Amino acid sequence: MRQSHMLIPTLKENPADAEIKSHQFLVRAGYIRQIASGIYSFLPIGRRVLSKVESIVREEMEKIGAHEMAMPALEPSELWKETGRWTTFGSELMRINDRHQREFALGATHEEVITSIVRNEVKSYKQLPITVFQIQNKFRDEARPRFGLLRGREFLMKDAYSFNESYESLDETYQKMFDAYSNVFRRCGLNFRAVIADSGAMGGKDTHEFMVLSEVGEDVIAYSDTSRYAANIEMAPVAAEYKKTNESPLTMKKTETPDKKTMKDVADYLGHELREGLKSIMFQVDDQFVMAVTRGDHEVNDVKLKNLYNADIVELASEEDTKRLLGTGFGSLGPVDVPEEVEVVADHAVEALTNASCGANEEGYHYTNATPGEDFQVHQYADLRFIQEGDPSPDGQGVIKFARGIEVGHVFKLGEFYSERMNATFLNDQGKAKTMIMGSYGIGVSRTLAAIVEQYHDERGITWPAKIAPYQVHLLSMNPKKEDQKELADDLYETLLEAGIEVLYDDRKERAGVKFADSDLFGIPLRITVGKRAAEGMVEVKDRATGEQSDVESSGITEYVNDWYKGK
Amino acid sequence: MRQSHMLIPTLKENPADAEIKSHQFLVRAGYIRQIASGIYSFLPIGRRVLSKVESIVREEMEKIGAHEMAMPALEPSELWKETGRWTTFGSELMRINDRHQREFALGATHEEVITSIVRNEVKSYKQLPITVFQIQNKFRDEARPRFGLLRGREFLMKDAYSFNESYESLDETYQKMFDAYSNVFRRCGLNFRAVIADSGAMGGKDTHEFMVLSEVGEDVIAYSDTSRYAANIEMAPVAAEYKKTNESPLTMKKTETPDKKTMKDVADYLGHELREGLKSIMFQVDDQFVMAVTRGDHEVNDVKLKNLYNADIVELASEEDTKRLLGTGFGSLGPVDVPEEVEVVADHAVEALTNASCGANEEGYHYTNATPGEDFQVHQYADLRFIQEGDPSPDGQGVIKFARGIEVGHVFKLGEFYSERMNATFLNDQGKAKTMIMGSYGIGVSRTLAAIVEQYHDERGITWPAKIAPYQVHLLSMNPKKEDQKELADDLYETLLEAGIEVLYDDRKERAGVKFADSDLFGIPLRITVGKRAAEGMVEVKDRATGEQSDVESSGITEYVNDWYKGK
Repeated sequence: MRQSHMLIPTLKENPADAEIKSHQFLVRAGYIRQIASGIYSFLPIGRRVLSKVESIVREEMEKIGAHEMAMPALEPSELWKETGRWTTFGSELMRINDRHQREFALGATHEEVITSIVRNEVKSYKQLPITVFQIQNKFRDEARPRFGLLRGREFLMKDAYSFNESYESLDETYQKMFDAYSNVFRRCGLNFRAVIADSGAMGGKDTHEFMVLSEVGEDVIAYSDTSRYAANIEMAPVAAEYKKTNESPLTMKKTETPDKKTMKDVADYLGHELREGLKSIMFQVDDQFVMAVTRGDHEVNDVKLKNLYNADIVELASEEDTKRLLGTGFGSLGPVDVPEEVEVVADHAVEALTNASCGANEEGYHYTNATPGEDFQVHQYADLRFIQEGDPSPDGQGVIKFARGIEVGHVFKLGEFYSERMNATFLNDQGKAKTMIMGSYGIGVSRTLAAIVEQYHDERGITWPAKIAPYQVHLLSMNPKKEDQKELADDLYETLLEAGIEVLYDDRKERAGVKFADSDLFGIPLRITVGKRAAEGMVEVKDRATGEQSDVESSGITEYVNDWYKGK
Repeated sequence: MRQSHMLIPTLKENPADAEIKSHQFLVRAGYIRQIASGIYSFLPIGRRVLSKVESIVREEMEKIGAHEMAMPALEPSELWKETGRWTTFGSELMRINDRHQREFALGATHEEVITSIVRNEVKSYKQLPITVFQIQNKFRDEARPRFGLLRGREFLMKDAYSFNESYESLDETYQKMFDAYSNVFRRCGLNFRAVIADSGAMGGKDTHEFMVLSEVGEDVIAYSDTSRYAANIEMAPVAAEYKKTNESPLTMKKTETPDKKTMKDVADYLGHELREGLKSIMFQVDDQFVMAVTRGDHEVNDVKLKNLYNADIVELASEEDTKRLLGTGFGSLGPVDVPEEVEVVADHAVEALTNASCGANEEGYHYTNATPGEDFQVHQYADLRFIQEGDPSPDGQGVIKFARGIEVGHVFKLGEFYSERMNATFLNDQGKAKTMIMGSYGIGVSRTLAAIVEQYHDERGITWPAKIAPYQVHLLSMNPKKEDQKELADDLYETLLEAGIEVLYDDRKERAGVKFADSDLFGIPLRITVGKRAAEGMVEVKDRATGEQSDVESSGITEYVNDWYKGK
């Protein structure tokens, strides 16, 4: 394409609202423009990179036998009411009335619509499994849209849905999808992890998030430094083994700890390590009051507590309830002498402690030399804490590290959540009606694009991986007013196009400095400059990422480019 | 693709609400499913044909240097208020509020958004012309959605916008776009006409609609039986020349015409041809009362009247005004003795009449032997009537015929309507600020698909043109329970796929009759059936459109298919 008549406006300065690199560079290099908060237009080169990601996604979906379809953005509220999500989805779901005051949801996701189609059209186990996908704009009215394409309100997404006759069959589809997602993000050049995630309120079984490692990510991942293990921190089980010391239990003592508010304050005051104190927190787990006890250097993980009790709701107990039951507020709680209504559960690490300190359930006092089994009883020991950096990896290989991640994909075993509520059944090989088993799978296509930029940039602009770049070659004529330069550049442009190479041709009458700066911003992997040596038929080729430059004979340019891209 | 696990539900019966063939067959063959009134999902084979049309559109756009981009569906109301269309677009524009009660239009079209981008980013004549396009779902809340994909509320559209520095430059872009559109519809195999259309309220200059000829079309086209001339009937000028006869004017006479209501009644009663009477209609043209007079066999065209007076509003005068000014109601009007406040204009055909009959401005009376110039005065003669079948074509070639058409495309010289209201200016080569000159261009992609089916079907289903078909080959195994048939069919499936041929493989365990009926419904151009002669390595090939069948050696099938498609 000739740049002179293309809409690629570049900016010298970072936009005021752009905090992260992908947002800054995608705007500055003319890939996107904001239309409203969290709502963007993709300008021509932006649309091109989006298409590259789309194509990769499409290919990998087709490889596993998923069929592309297209559902509408306008989704009748009746369907969302069948699953209850018209209410539970909350204010992120945008709603619109038509001229007859019929309510529609603006497509945030399509479980309801696809289930309504499949329940009408699929009757027999012979037709299962079915997997479909679509690529289209989705709408979610985020409370705080930010970070450009990372958290928008209208964004491009690939969503897929599978319908299976059994959980075993779902497992197979899920694995295929998992592999396809891995291929997609690998082909996008991303450093990512498939992370065990929380299946949340949807009642599903397995679920993985695909996280691109990045400091600007909103999620924290616990991963093994040697194996492929990775999980959201709240999901990672703790595999640490705790050994009891030879220490003998001493007599428990009540000690005044005036105005010591934090675990650290108390430990310092009593002269022991943080890990020698007990942290006690009161929860309400459905209708049960629970005191969760961990070591002072650990944090209780309420997801684990929830799973332990198989509960619907876990929240901190109110200070009022706490005072009523234990006679004191949050600052001085401990497991000694708690009333029967309160169940004490403790992390495995607590079991290994001897002569620990803990709150005395009396404002301004702590016990020292408290030993579990001797001075207080524990109803149940369990894995209750968040994993920490340095813990052994749950898969037995290596040690846990933390990283931040951008969620670009999500695979989810939905099970029967939607099919049961919407009555999507089929006849099995015995002629019996069975509920379909579903999965859903999403890739944030526009978000992936931003994640790529987060991993591929330097101080001057974007450095696209080969397969994602909007063009393969950025051709520049340094001074198009000079006839020999213009002629050779025009000539090379035609030659490269004819060879099927994607070229952006900066034929503008701009200063060389402007062109070079724009070229670095754009991030096209190879820059070819037609300059002073045009008369000799020599051009300069620059590798955008490494900065390496070399002079190349223009007659061999097609071969040079093809060789360079071979295997990339 | 293997049909067994694909979502292609076929129906034996026409859906109750489907009145036209494209709607019936697209639903019955499993291309689309309705989600709500005027809102459809495209099932996998539907999505495939849509992609074929999309690809053709994309290629033709790229050929003329239009660049693909993507604007959001959520368009801030502020932009629509700048052009006044927030009000004037009316209730077809769907509106939605976000969680902060900010108003958005749901993308019905994108003139405002693209103009807001271009006015911010394009500053110099050197950057012009710019042409961009996008392909995406559009939303219009039609009062009466119907005919399946022909008139929906959410539909796939290609829209393009051009920004030029002058009207001459716009003319060039417009012509390129016009040619590209012609290519698109030709490649889709459509019998269509580019039709001169009314530029309506948008203040533009030239505009053409691309009409697919079809009995179910909602528009009427006047076209030449020999040349490429075509126009919306209200736009076609009448080129007929009328010769005055040698007849001498006789004395005008008032005659009673009791209870004769229509022109035909009066003509029969008075014993003359319809063409020998005058039809007189009272209009209010802005603030002026106008009596428009045509021959009895002609119809007055209010668009022409409007253009004649360069008026904003043309409507029928009220019966009250008519009675006040002429002393009688609509049934007995005529041009004789009208008061000064009423201007009489007449069609050229009237000038050639001698001794015509006309209303006497008195209930139940007509004049006979009324001759213009003698018995009544005409303020102005003009081309005032609708063109009729049999009229000479305005381009001087052939004779006018009428046809019904489905509008699939529209090219429009917008001029300065949007750029002026939104202050989209550039500096010209003299450094002077000028308003950009715009064009807009649309193709109804999903509607085009329906139009293709209207032209390509028979009583058994769709008969896709080669370039649009969802697959090139429909491969059927007649009885997959027979090992030799299954083996050969599986084998052919792999062979065809490897040769890059698009195959749908009906591997279902269904009766042959069901498979054949479904195959005819789908309309894939070539059907290859593996049946009884599988053991000999022979298969049956059927041309879907012509019904021709032949037995072909399976070893040569790839060549056969490639030959068949050559040049199609």
